Amino acid sequence: MTESLTVTDRTRLRRSPKRGDFDLTTICTILDAQPLCSVGYVIDGKPYVTPTLQWREDNHVYWHGSSASHALRQGEGTEVCINVTILDGFVLARSGKHHSVNYRSVTLFGKAFKVEDPAEKHAKLARFVNGLFPGRYEGLRPEHPQDLKATTLLGLKLEEGSAKVRSGGPNDEEADYALPIWAGVIPVHLVTGPPIPDPRNLPDVGAPSHVTNFQLHHSSDRS
Amino acid sequence: MTESLTVTDRTRLRRSPKRGDFDLTTICTILDAQPLCSVGYVIDGKPYVTPTLQWREDNHVYWHGSSASHALRQGEGTEVCINVTILDGFVLARSGKHHSVNYRSVTLFGKAFKVEDPAEKHAKLARFVNGLFPGRYEGLRPEHPQDLKATTLLGLKLEEGSAKVRSGGPNDEEADYALPIWAGVIPVHLVTGPPIPDPRNLPDVGAPSHVTNFQLHHSSDRS
Repeated sequence: MTESLTVTDRTRLRRSPKRGDFDLTTICTILDAQPLCSVGYVIDGKPYVTPTLQWREDNHVYWHGSSASHALRQGEGTEVCINVTILDGFVLARSGKHHSVNYRSVTLFGKAFKVEDPAEKHAKLARFVNGLFPGRYEGLRPEHPQDLKATTLLGLKLEEGSAKVRSGGPNDEEADYALPIWAGVIPVHLVTGPPIPDPRNLPDVGAPSHVTNFQLHHSSDRS
Repeated sequence: MTESLTVTDRTRLRRSPKRGDFDLTTICTILDAQPLCSVGYVIDGKPYVTPTLQWREDNHVYWHGSSASHALRQGEGTEVCINVTILDGFVLARSGKHHSVNYRSVTLFGKAFKVEDPAEKHAKLARFVNGLFPGRYEGLRPEHPQDLKATTLLGLKLEEGSAKVRSGGPNDEEADYALPIWAGVIPVHLVTGPPIPDPRNLPDVGAPSHVTNFQLHHSSDRS
């Protein structure tokens, strides 16, 4: 992809324009690297933020939940703001002001749409599971039709939004480099621990490769 | 602390009441374990979510940023929703429906207030830095007064909100335990990498203990 999202009044960066990126490849790479997202929406004029998992298919992101849930009942046409942020490190500078964090972040704006067609819903939920755990969905107990019904699946087109990224060391004021203060970066990253099998797994059932090879940023299935 | 927040219409959990927790100790422990948060707010009726770092002092959380920033200009009396979410693992079940994630999450609601008094601002920013890196602030180049002015510091009282936590293995339907499907948890956690010193550090300046002993959940300075 070489496309970029169009800058709008909501996505123009006021403070550090060099950190902003409207390139779709950058945006998609960040979305694919971290399923955890925050969905912002408005009820009775007041802000709500709900954490959930998102997944991407081409130029849409999707998220889902119980049809009974607060966050999902808004449904069709609801204005949302979705943010994904990956914390990469703490930046320690020679003054308080220049302390910062390294991160990769995407913010998307727009009206959510509901995926209503059962076949499409099914295919998208399969892709969600397989996007994290390649090949897993087909080996699961097939969904009960009523479960599909009880699930609300929302989507948002990647139309308005931007990525914001900070990397590298501190940017101190020139005079401050003469000070005997340790500056640098403490990197942080999310790691996977050894899988914990359910004690009720059947004796002959070992962990499949989508478990033993699990990595958060699984990109082979993405477009 | 043995206090609890009062349940309100915004914080009553509709779907899984057993996952909700209004106990202040639980809420504070989660806030202290992860500074990264999402601040939700409303401009012209539309939702915005901005990632930033929060820190806690007693029964308030604080966050800050450039006074020029979009997210901070809302200021005094703005309704906000703050969410902190720590992802602890992926829960793999025997059906798609029962896949889940383990997490610790806090959502707070209320009207933000601005900290205007320069001495109070200074003390709170010092606490922010020292909360992450004990003792660091006093060794830094003192803040320029104009930098303090250019920083907006917002706070929110812990009054309305709740924690939501999921832990443990999958909860499958009884019949599904007979299926030869691997189920279990893939734990994830945030780790700290080796500090990367700024190449412009002076030759004799080694990493202080607040760098070498850095851990995200530093609790000794908290009340």
